[in-house]
Amino acid sequence: MTSIPFAARHIGPDPDEQLQMLKTVGYGSLEELMAAAIPQVIRSDSPLGLPPAASEEEAIAELRALAGRNTVARSMIGLGYHGTHTPAVIRRNVLENPAWYTAYTPYQPEISQGRLEALLNFQTMVTDLTGLHVANASMLDEGTAAAEAMTLARRASKAKSPVYVVDPDTLPQTLAVLRTRAEPLGIELVTLGDELPEAFFGLHLQYPGASGAVRDHTALVEAAHAAGALVTVAADLLALTLLRPPGEIGADIAAGTTQRFGVPLGFGGPHAGYLAVRDGLQRSLPGRLVGVSRDADGASAYRLALQTREQHIRRERATSNICTAQVLLAVMASMYAVYHGPDGLRAIAERTHGHATRLAAGLRAAGVEVAHGAFFDTVTAVVPGRAAEVVAAAERAGVNLRLAGPDTVGVACDETTTAADVDAVLAAFGAEPYTGQVSSGIEGVLERQSDFLTHPVFRTHHSETGMLRYLRRLSDLDYALDRGMIPLGSCTMKLNATTEMEPVSWPEFANIHPFAPRTQTEGYETLVAQLEAWLAEITGYDAVSVQPNAGSQGELAGLLAIRGYHRSRGDDHRDVCLIPSSAHGTNAASAVMAGMRVVVVACDDAGNVDLADLAAKIEAHRDTLAAIMVTYPSTHGVYEAGIADLCAAVHDAGGQVYVDGANLNALVGFARPGRFGADVSHLNLHKTFCIPHGGGGPGVGPVAVRAHLADFLPGDPLDPAAEHAVSAAAHGSAGILPISWAYLRMMGPEGLVRATGVAVLAANYVAARLREHYPVLYAGEGGLVAHECILDLRPLTRATGVTVDDVAKRLIDYGFHAPTMSFPVSGTLMVEPTESEDLAELDRFVDAMIAIRAEIAAVEAGEWPKEDNPLRNAPHTAAAVSADEWPHPYPRSLAAYPAGVNRVGKYWPPVRRIDGAFGDRNLVCSCPSPEAFAS
Amino acid sequence: MTSIPFAARHIGPDPDEQLQMLKTVGYGSLEELMAAAIPQVIRSDSPLGLPPAASEEEAIAELRALAGRNTVARSMIGLGYHGTHTPAVIRRNVLENPAWYTAYTPYQPEISQGRLEALLNFQTMVTDLTGLHVANASMLDEGTAAAEAMTLARRASKAKSPVYVVDPDTLPQTLAVLRTRAEPLGIELVTLGDELPEAFFGLHLQYPGASGAVRDHTALVEAAHAAGALVTVAADLLALTLLRPPGEIGADIAAGTTQRFGVPLGFGGPHAGYLAVRDGLQRSLPGRLVGVSRDADGASAYRLALQTREQHIRRERATSNICTAQVLLAVMASMYAVYHGPDGLRAIAERTHGHATRLAAGLRAAGVEVAHGAFFDTVTAVVPGRAAEVVAAAERAGVNLRLAGPDTVGVACDETTTAADVDAVLAAFGAEPYTGQVSSGIEGVLERQSDFLTHPVFRTHHSETGMLRYLRRLSDLDYALDRGMIPLGSCTMKLNATTEMEPVSWPEFANIHPFAPRTQTEGYETLVAQLEAWLAEITGYDAVSVQPNAGSQGELAGLLAIRGYHRSRGDDHRDVCLIPSSAHGTNAASAVMAGMRVVVVACDDAGNVDLADLAAKIEAHRDTLAAIMVTYPSTHGVYEAGIADLCAAVHDAGGQVYVDGANLNALVGFARPGRFGADVSHLNLHKTFCIPHGGGGPGVGPVAVRAHLADFLPGDPLDPAAEHAVSAAAHGSAGILPISWAYLRMMGPEGLVRATGVAVLAANYVAARLREHYPVLYAGEGGLVAHECILDLRPLTRATGVTVDDVAKRLIDYGFHAPTMSFPVSGTLMVEPTESEDLAELDRFVDAMIAIRAEIAAVEAGEWPKEDNPLRNAPHTAAAVSADEWPHPYPRSLAAYPAGVNRVGKYWPPVRRIDGAFGDRNLVCSCPSPEAFAS
Repeated sequence: MTSIPFAARHIGPDPDEQLQMLKTVGYGSLEELMAAAIPQVIRSDSPLGLPPAASEEEAIAELRALAGRNTVARSMIGLGYHGTHTPAVIRRNVLENPAWYTAYTPYQPEISQGRLEALLNFQTMVTDLTGLHVANASMLDEGTAAAEAMTLARRASKAKSPVYVVDPDTLPQTLAVLRTRAEPLGIELVTLGDELPEAFFGLHLQYPGASGAVRDHTALVEAAHAAGALVTVAADLLALTLLRPPGEIGADIAAGTTQRFGVPLGFGGPHAGYLAVRDGLQRSLPGRLVGVSRDADGASAYRLALQTREQHIRRERATSNICTAQVLLAVMASMYAVYHGPDGLRAIAERTHGHATRLAAGLRAAGVEVAHGAFFDTVTAVVPGRAAEVVAAAERAGVNLRLAGPDTVGVACDETTTAADVDAVLAAFGAEPYTGQVSSGIEGVLERQSDFLTHPVFRTHHSETGMLRYLRRLSDLDYALDRGMIPLGSCTMKLNATTEMEPVSWPEFANIHPFAPRTQTEGYETLVAQLEAWLAEITGYDAVSVQPNAGSQGELAGLLAIRGYHRSRGDDHRDVCLIPSSAHGTNAASAVMAGMRVVVVACDDAGNVDLADLAAKIEAHRDTLAAIMVTYPSTHGVYEAGIADLCAAVHDAGGQVYVDGANLNALVGFARPGRFGADVSHLNLHKTFCIPHGGGGPGVGPVAVRAHLADFLPGDPLDPAAEHAVSAAAHGSAGILPISWAYLRMMGPEGLVRATGVAVLAANYVAARLREHYPVLYAGEGGLVAHECILDLRPLTRATGVTVDDVAKRLIDYGFHAPTMSFPVSGTLMVEPTESEDLAELDRFVDAMIAIRAEIAAVEAGEWPKEDNPLRNAPHTAAAVSADEWPHPYPRSLAAYPAGVNRVGKYWPPVRRIDGAFGDRNLVCSCPSPEAFAS
Repeated sequence: MTSIPFAARHIGPDPDEQLQMLKTVGYGSLEELMAAAIPQVIRSDSPLGLPPAASEEEAIAELRALAGRNTVARSMIGLGYHGTHTPAVIRRNVLENPAWYTAYTPYQPEISQGRLEALLNFQTMVTDLTGLHVANASMLDEGTAAAEAMTLARRASKAKSPVYVVDPDTLPQTLAVLRTRAEPLGIELVTLGDELPEAFFGLHLQYPGASGAVRDHTALVEAAHAAGALVTVAADLLALTLLRPPGEIGADIAAGTTQRFGVPLGFGGPHAGYLAVRDGLQRSLPGRLVGVSRDADGASAYRLALQTREQHIRRERATSNICTAQVLLAVMASMYAVYHGPDGLRAIAERTHGHATRLAAGLRAAGVEVAHGAFFDTVTAVVPGRAAEVVAAAERAGVNLRLAGPDTVGVACDETTTAADVDAVLAAFGAEPYTGQVSSGIEGVLERQSDFLTHPVFRTHHSETGMLRYLRRLSDLDYALDRGMIPLGSCTMKLNATTEMEPVSWPEFANIHPFAPRTQTEGYETLVAQLEAWLAEITGYDAVSVQPNAGSQGELAGLLAIRGYHRSRGDDHRDVCLIPSSAHGTNAASAVMAGMRVVVVACDDAGNVDLADLAAKIEAHRDTLAAIMVTYPSTHGVYEAGIADLCAAVHDAGGQVYVDGANLNALVGFARPGRFGADVSHLNLHKTFCIPHGGGGPGVGPVAVRAHLADFLPGDPLDPAAEHAVSAAAHGSAGILPISWAYLRMMGPEGLVRATGVAVLAANYVAARLREHYPVLYAGEGGLVAHECILDLRPLTRATGVTVDDVAKRLIDYGFHAPTMSFPVSGTLMVEPTESEDLAELDRFVDAMIAIRAEIAAVEAGEWPKEDNPLRNAPHTAAAVSADEWPHPYPRSLAAYPAGVNRVGKYWPPVRRIDGAFGDRNLVCSCPSPEAFAS
């Protein structure tokens, strides 16, 4: 035991500060506050059945023991997951650096230029390697990227057919995800045979194939285009340094993973998937897209482009439900490309290919048939009746191969493969080391001729010193939790403790292939089972799956469980999903992807679900009602007392209740959705359970269900009989599950209860202190908010012209990340301080907001013009406040160092306010020439 | 093998850039350049007999195998080394963070405010806990701190006696270091008996004793004072949270280690020692002392205080030779105190003490005698004839105890001790777990009553979020290698590669007690033996010891070897040490500590040792000549062709040749001091061999000798028969030796040769490009410099009043750390770019220097007044350039963004130029009240 339990390190305010805050809010104790805040009807007062808190050292020791039950073998299984050397400078300075991993999604682009540049590099890397026009940043894995490509093809194709033709050499887990995603949308998957079908809207090709075969797909692509179909090529990026890229064989879309660009296997994730499209399809792309625009001074600046495609704006008409992606991993992969450059990547590919050719030659010399003449890194050996025996022999030698069938073994080489590995594999086949000449496995027509990664950024940072400085410089441009609070409503930006993070880098967690034999993954299986059990205990559900690798996927998985349940009872017609108007846009987008029709339920003036409208909507759709999706506490930050009635009403009509777990940080230890009436929830481990946001991912979105839905949880994507797989790997982003495991293990039941209490206290403290300066929208029956509060700026905006944007940007000058803007109510700010911010930081924020209110008053009073004041001109860069000319009616010192801002160590935004619309009109989504920044 | 060998990552310029640089310098290849630069007489062209380069992954695999041969047992040996929990947030964000570990010593205080604040916290922590007035930051270990205390006492005492009385309960390794340091100075160590001797100048007490005994020393202190002696108390800082501090029992000096404040054992180091003194002795303190002063705007600012005490100014009259200390570790220890605060530290101490009391009670209950009634954490058990058996039984149970004698066993509890550990120890004694009542082992009069750590900094950062932000904020104030080059002549600020650094954190290297049984340390012993052998091969010597834990200690060890050699031959009278006027001040200070008389040899106009003056000095001191100490290449950055003659002349006179290895980066792979005439050298692993500077340590200063001196290398401080121990642990700072091991393993012989060549090329490139703008002082015969070059500003200063200081501070505005100022020649800048800086960074530096030259010209031309120009006012803070008033005759934009400085991501110094003299006149060396910074 350490002297101070972990909970006291995780929770920001110490007991004295908590008392002081309670006094401000008007309660004598946390218990009293929570008794008043949470409706009795949902309270669950039985203690959490979790193990008592372990110290940080004890938790690490337990994790070491679990890690010791995994076996790090040489993985040559392939199937889209490959060994890779993470450059140590990238591991330490990105994956293990809070400046990168505690950042939020770059919705405030002025304070996110560093990671936006890294993501623009990522997009450039993908477009260059695939030979396509625009790539996003990024996708969740190859399986979901392929699924998004399928729906993109459907949206963009003029063909009316519901048929999507799939290469038989597709990765099995990709096929599983395609099946899951096709069914509710009425898409019919057809395996590509000798001939293409008459009509189809799209064609999915794997390049190289799962078997390793490299085929010239040019004729197929032409035929598909002739039929009005779009073609997706799921391509291996490393192979594309040597192979003709998809864009050059006419593909419309490329999809895949960037895992082997320096991102550890992690038993399946997290890794960044990618998706790229030819010119003309960019406005149909799902997911986040970084683009170049300009700031108020006309300087080049990055920001997310074309956000109107996304679900938080388009809701059920969005291109996809994808939200949190895999930014941290995309940054790693992009930096791997920056560090190696085109020549380095090609050298890695050639070495990898060289090992494969030597392997093939050795097999052939021993009389073993090699299935394909053209291959990149993977060789399929034909050994009639002997496959299992060969795989077992290799495993005894410490090498995992792929048992592709009773007669075939797949062997994938990668960056980490050595000549000794090849010899060991040959020995497992009974073959001798091969020392003769080998010839390339790639024929002339398949060879890449075009250049790639020609932008200077891929030639500049090749020394470790150079890379270190580039990473430092970019991270210094950004604002993350290591600088100050990020009070984002609904996003729960709390501490990501180092002890939680450290095990992620351990080889025994990092270097495990997702399809490794079960005998090698006991540690992971035990950890996953424990974590799922603990999450079930906390939420009151009966079964949990951690497979969904983002909240959006958890939503989909939950809705698919509901769909599966209804269909299992013959209720195929139940397809209406009720969604309150205040819901996250993702809810609606997910419902559509699950084959449901969205019906919106109104909210009343208090921000609660309008129970009368609900009753009316239930009545109108009683026969077809599938589900209701609500967030609890509501997206208005309120514990709605009507939740039990709502559940009952929906159940009475034969519907299922989906409670979005985004706000679970307000419930843990006090109420359990699975007990107060819900049937299914997804959680966000990157919100409530301390996985860092990583600048926009990784996320993990476990789905939790009551027993009657357990059969409909996601199945193992490698099991051909399993259904509902939503990720490419059985346990999704398993590599980061130790984070949440450690959090729960170190907090223990009492620590979790206290954390929830302090989170609610902090929100109410902010509300109490700010209420006289800004109206606080919505509250529960006791006048209390839950774990977040909404500040209404609309009256001020009407009176003064100062917008919510102005306040958000001015907060940057004060050293803060803005709260959530205009969600769930336009013209408001939603503040979620979390339990991890201490009183000094809470007060610093409140004081800044009060000072900003005074600035607004000065605009109102006419002291400053509406178009030229510190709010409208915010944020102020160092360059702006030190410019030789200062034409503004307020002093430089006020611009630079408003009240409470320390002159020493101030965070300066690198650019002024960014004009997003300009960038959308002039779309540039890959690295601009350096001259663009020369100004 | 990775696609790019490590050497290509370590070396900044790629082959194309190297060619471009060679063209500027006027050579066709590195080989040609080096043939011209290095005198043939010293060339050693046989290839280095080192293993060929391993890839980063191969080196890590080998280190993992070595680590696997160490056994991490529960260490309860004590003796000044204790288990501790490094808070993970401190490990990740200090020990593993390049922003902290790649920083240089804070000689440029304006860009070092972060680590200076951390060190001021350290000093405050030490003064508070010891109850004394001023503490420095920091010492190398407890042994050397005690030795410095001894010499301090001698300087300060009015007693004429050479006797220093030492507590018999002193740590054995401290006693060994005291013996080494006392002998050459004529100090006589006398063990304290029942009575004090008649005359003595000082008294050393251990508190608690090595046996664990806590004694009331008050009467002894009074008696010593009555005799005119000073009293040093070597105290355990954790114990002082519960025990009356040394200052309150009248001690003049306290010394010790801060290891158990969160710094891993590391098989002996590195850890920060401490030294504190009562009021009146502060100007006699050796080592670095941080103080508070003010900047040009009158704002509070930190800088090193009283630097005139130090050897780089006072040379042979310095208080000590200590130079590089243990800053990184001092920062860790100070942050441990900041994180835990006074209550947390006291709780840790009480828990530790509680385990010890339970252990003692359990032993007594089993009839085992406990030697002392009063103890803190360590219990000495009396087990006649059974001690070895008990220790062996404990070792079988995974616990290391101290075999204090045939009849006595020492057991030390610490922060990591658990009840189970205590039970295991009891079982080894044949005792049962103890469940009865226990009473404190500390009596009333010994209990601490006074407060400590009352400054707010020790109460503010107790949540992990708070600590993370504090560490980030401080590191953001500083400039380190992760921002840009630090072209410090003679300091070789090169890449500290991540792969070299990572193993330092592994438990199998971090958690090994220096006195663990040999059977548990095979990995370390093997690594040390290999590293010593590789260093011997590189330097051409016959034997190497890595024990010296700083360059200064390496110098002392080398000189003591010479001294020992002469004395072994009956040449006791050989005590003159010739030192060129250009030498590092440390040389002279070390010579004095080794009992030698310093005779200065002049340098000629070309900067070389004046061979005529050398001949005269040899002649004058022929009979008493002990040694000459020279640096090679010279501190003027020149390969002196006369080195062989110099060696011969000294040898002819019976002297030994000491070549200071500070500039070894210019020799590796090309010349070997042990072959071109030297007898002994010390190396700096933190210069040539990639151990990071850590903001002023850790350093490692191995001593390398020819065979005839091998018997006089440092002995094991735990071996009572061994001599010349200079550090408290046999292998010094063993915990960081994997860094240099990995560097050599990954570079291989060819990589090392190329690194040297590029280092010399880079210096000559800078010289070639700057020569027309600033005179380059000194060059070798071909007009070439070695690995550094000296830019002469004296003519410009005379003409314009612009000083070397002005240029150094203006370089901050341009985004650089200044080169070495006024060493070895006053009024100059010495530039050592190293091989790790790529061409873009070299050019950025050269261009900045040229731009600054133009600014100087503008002053010369009268465009700007001598007292108001961008040079004199540098560095410019963001606050200064954005002030509402701008009274200067040059524009703000020039102040803030001079030529070539990017507006995006500029590094801003937190304070303006600091007035050092003001702080020395108004000495404040502990944390000032927060109000001092309120301005």
